[in-house]
Amino acid sequence: MTYCVAMRLSSGMIFVSDTRTNAGVDHISSFRKLHVFQQDDERTLVLQSAGNLATTQSVLSLLRRDCGSAEKANLMSCSNMYDVALLVGDMLRDVLKRDGEEFSGTLLLGGQIKGEEPRLFQIYPQGNFIEASVDTPYFQIGESKYGKPIIDRVLRYDTPLDQAMQCALISMDSTLASNISVGLPLDVMFYHSDTFSDGEQYHITEQHPYYSQIRQLWSKGLLSVFSQLPPLQL
Amino acid sequence: MTYCVAMRLSSGMIFVSDTRTNAGVDHISSFRKLHVFQQDDERTLVLQSAGNLATTQSVLSLLRRDCGSAEKANLMSCSNMYDVALLVGDMLRDVLKRDGEEFSGTLLLGGQIKGEEPRLFQIYPQGNFIEASVDTPYFQIGESKYGKPIIDRVLRYDTPLDQAMQCALISMDSTLASNISVGLPLDVMFYHSDTFSDGEQYHITEQHPYYSQIRQLWSKGLLSVFSQLPPLQL
Repeated sequence: MTYCVAMRLSSGMIFVSDTRTNAGVDHISSFRKLHVFQQDDERTLVLQSAGNLATTQSVLSLLRRDCGSAEKANLMSCSNMYDVALLVGDMLRDVLKRDGEEFSGTLLLGGQIKGEEPRLFQIYPQGNFIEASVDTPYFQIGESKYGKPIIDRVLRYDTPLDQAMQCALISMDSTLASNISVGLPLDVMFYHSDTFSDGEQYHITEQHPYYSQIRQLWSKGLLSVFSQLPPLQL
Repeated sequence: MTYCVAMRLSSGMIFVSDTRTNAGVDHISSFRKLHVFQQDDERTLVLQSAGNLATTQSVLSLLRRDCGSAEKANLMSCSNMYDVALLVGDMLRDVLKRDGEEFSGTLLLGGQIKGEEPRLFQIYPQGNFIEASVDTPYFQIGESKYGKPIIDRVLRYDTPLDQAMQCALISMDSTLASNISVGLPLDVMFYHSDTFSDGEQYHITEQHPYYSQIRQLWSKGLLSVFSQLPPLQL
């Protein structure tokens, strides 16, 4: 499985993806699920993928192949994020049609093209998509439920990016704790609005000092809050 | 949807069920999903249900109809919990076979029959089942993922029943916060080992003072732990 989360907030976006893929418990590997397409001063596009690896890798390969094509609409030629979402949705639908009904894939597309605000989309296997809003400033794909409660409690549209990243990392920790098919290392990225850069990207392994520290502090903190609840009275 | 959790611990068992059922967002109702069959000094059986309401209500109706039958094996005649699980699994499979492939249901069966320790089973739509153990002392059915991380962090086989109930209530709170198809009121029950009683049962509504209090304290506590995490350093 997979767990990816992306947030579109007032000051920019953050993206967090795990790297584990599995086909049965005896075949667990690490693959990158966070992909950046960037052109200085002009556009930054981030794709995160969940679902069948053959499907999502094909979609990424084909999108990459077409980049810069003079004939075909492609990631670098679209003039706005909505058109990029359409393009990616079409590609996903085409690959799934080719590969067969038993496969599936879902994508998150975030980023910014000059002339627009940053935008975030969740693209379904059917090729259609929804867009994040001020009220729902984040999307998750893959094994999303374990890590949803903490995001719902903490995240607001105006949450600063650093805090949002802490929230996403804690959300990932809850998922890691409850599901062995989601695993470290993580790929994480910040995108600050209007920079059109490839953001700040980090690779977080089991040994990462800060992540280890907050995982421990979070676990201890939860147990401490729990132990301080007043005695049961029903 | 539904969220039910049952725990089999060193000093007894606890059961927590929500009461919401829905068939589309415009048809949301409350039904009891926690059912107790009891015979003084001899047996206590608790069934919790998730899935299609027509299916699980039929299973319960048929099990209740057969109770006390002289000819048929029934909930009151089985001499051990394994045989009860078999009986319930057969009934579930039969009803699903009758109603059709598009329906599904899952049950939790907990309790104690004289001569045995308390036991807890999760019964699948196929009629087979798994039993809780010292290492995995709890089962969840329905919308289980939102509320799993807190149980995994807190619950051990020797957790006292009062603490286990607090943990189940917090787990339910995480689920309520993230999924509108799970809803109050809750039915909760304690069973203390070797009492063969119908336990202590409580009905928890939105206005329940203790539950309101710990929901607020939990939410505040989490936000406080989160805000005390050291500044992000990647």
